[in-house]
Amino acid sequence: MRIIRTLPELKVALKALRESHKSIGFVPTMGFLHEGHASLIKQSTARCDATVVSVFVNPTQFGPTEDLSRYPRDLERDQNLCLRLGVAILFMPEAAEVYPTGFCTSISVGPIADVLCGEFRPGHFRGVATVVAKLFNMVQPDLAFFGQKDLQQTAIIRRVVKDLNLPVDILVAPTVREADGLALSSRNSYLSATDRARALGVSRGLFAAEKAFAGGLRDADQLTALARKEMAGADEIQYCRVVDPFTLDTLGGEINRHVALCAAVVIGGTRLIDNILLTPNGENVQFISHLDV
Amino acid sequence: MRIIRTLPELKVALKALRESHKSIGFVPTMGFLHEGHASLIKQSTARCDATVVSVFVNPTQFGPTEDLSRYPRDLERDQNLCLRLGVAILFMPEAAEVYPTGFCTSISVGPIADVLCGEFRPGHFRGVATVVAKLFNMVQPDLAFFGQKDLQQTAIIRRVVKDLNLPVDILVAPTVREADGLALSSRNSYLSATDRARALGVSRGLFAAEKAFAGGLRDADQLTALARKEMAGADEIQYCRVVDPFTLDTLGGEINRHVALCAAVVIGGTRLIDNILLTPNGENVQFISHLDV
Repeated sequence: MRIIRTLPELKVALKALRESHKSIGFVPTMGFLHEGHASLIKQSTARCDATVVSVFVNPTQFGPTEDLSRYPRDLERDQNLCLRLGVAILFMPEAAEVYPTGFCTSISVGPIADVLCGEFRPGHFRGVATVVAKLFNMVQPDLAFFGQKDLQQTAIIRRVVKDLNLPVDILVAPTVREADGLALSSRNSYLSATDRARALGVSRGLFAAEKAFAGGLRDADQLTALARKEMAGADEIQYCRVVDPFTLDTLGGEINRHVALCAAVVIGGTRLIDNILLTPNGENVQFISHLDV
Repeated sequence: MRIIRTLPELKVALKALRESHKSIGFVPTMGFLHEGHASLIKQSTARCDATVVSVFVNPTQFGPTEDLSRYPRDLERDQNLCLRLGVAILFMPEAAEVYPTGFCTSISVGPIADVLCGEFRPGHFRGVATVVAKLFNMVQPDLAFFGQKDLQQTAIIRRVVKDLNLPVDILVAPTVREADGLALSSRNSYLSATDRARALGVSRGLFAAEKAFAGGLRDADQLTALARKEMAGADEIQYCRVVDPFTLDTLGGEINRHVALCAAVVIGGTRLIDNILLTPNGENVQFISHLDV
């Protein structure tokens, strides 16, 4: 595995891969890798000849009052995990490499960036869209892998890829959870033991709705109410809604198509998100390709 | 020469070129091609194995009161010119191919889009930046060619390429002029004979300043005043300024580095732009590569 920190080095390494006609899979991350990231890396190594993982805590997607400076980091552990999983290139640029002096371009994605998390994190998805497009252009992968946990991020990245004609296919892999249901997140490391116990209400709520849905309940508002009841231990439920997983439009009434139930809560100062997909016909849509947009 | 109207066709054609390791040059245009475009195409065919020309009158770069619907078109003449110049692919998509339903992403480039022409054409350069990035992603050229006449456009495209890490090099070729000095532009076709005579004041003003500069005059304000004097026959001088050709910052006082003198005027309802480069040390900077940013 090559550890690369600069763009010129990355360019040379990728050129060599491309000239030997290797397909390239890409997993962009903010580091502090967990089993959720590992599952994305495994999807990539299974499908592509060479896998590139980036570790970059992107400053432009954090708000002024958010957790940029205390975002968890463990580069040594990240390196070891990538090595073990057969990653070809671990790209860990400094901020100045990604945003040199004079940088002033940004990508906006319209209304889907302003709802859900966007309402509570203004500018966040502009930062995400811009850095992901930059990373795609740096790496030029054939496939890029994202986790379903970041549902809105996946919708926005699909939108950017489609709207800007970026030559990459996006694959979204299912959320990985702890045995007790908690969705893996680097931010879980912020939770005290009691906060972690309260955080379990989020997945419990989603599962309660999923179970009721499987039992035939189709009313979006009733499903949402069931989920919210389990989440009541949170300090704040920022949203808990049934949405179209691509447009992110909030849906009410009878559910008769593929939707997502998604939630964001704040517990002990930590913001957590989670979601599940609900499919009336029971088809497996956990793993969604770019072509479905 | 292949004439292509859809993205799937374009993809197949480009794949074949790439697999035979052909370098690709790209000349994006809005059609109604003139000798300025021809010079870009010739630069491309001289430097690249295959040249792609796009003809697309991009609606998103026209303001609501601008000339989108009457913008001049002559597809047959454009085709003949491209054929004669050895273009490999002429890409002429419909608007719906470029902007399908649901499209909502845009690229903003910060302050350099708000000065000069940006002040008089709000949103124009967001449209330009977005469509050029899209076309670059569609074509994935090695080199792309632009005319120096559109100075601000070249500065913005360089900025987007650099900031979004687009894997393409930008070459800017000198402005082509009529024998009497008028810079070639598709919009010259709007000019009546008397308006055309008035329009000559623009290049005459720039040349007067160039001559004074060559004679040793270095004061930006005096040079600008000389140029403006010749342009006085225009209905409106929107701007006539000495600027940094990359940041577009307006410069006053003593000129001791490479600058551009640029102007926009309105004559008989037609908006015309032109510029010249002034280089204190006499070096040839007419043909500027991406690496100079």
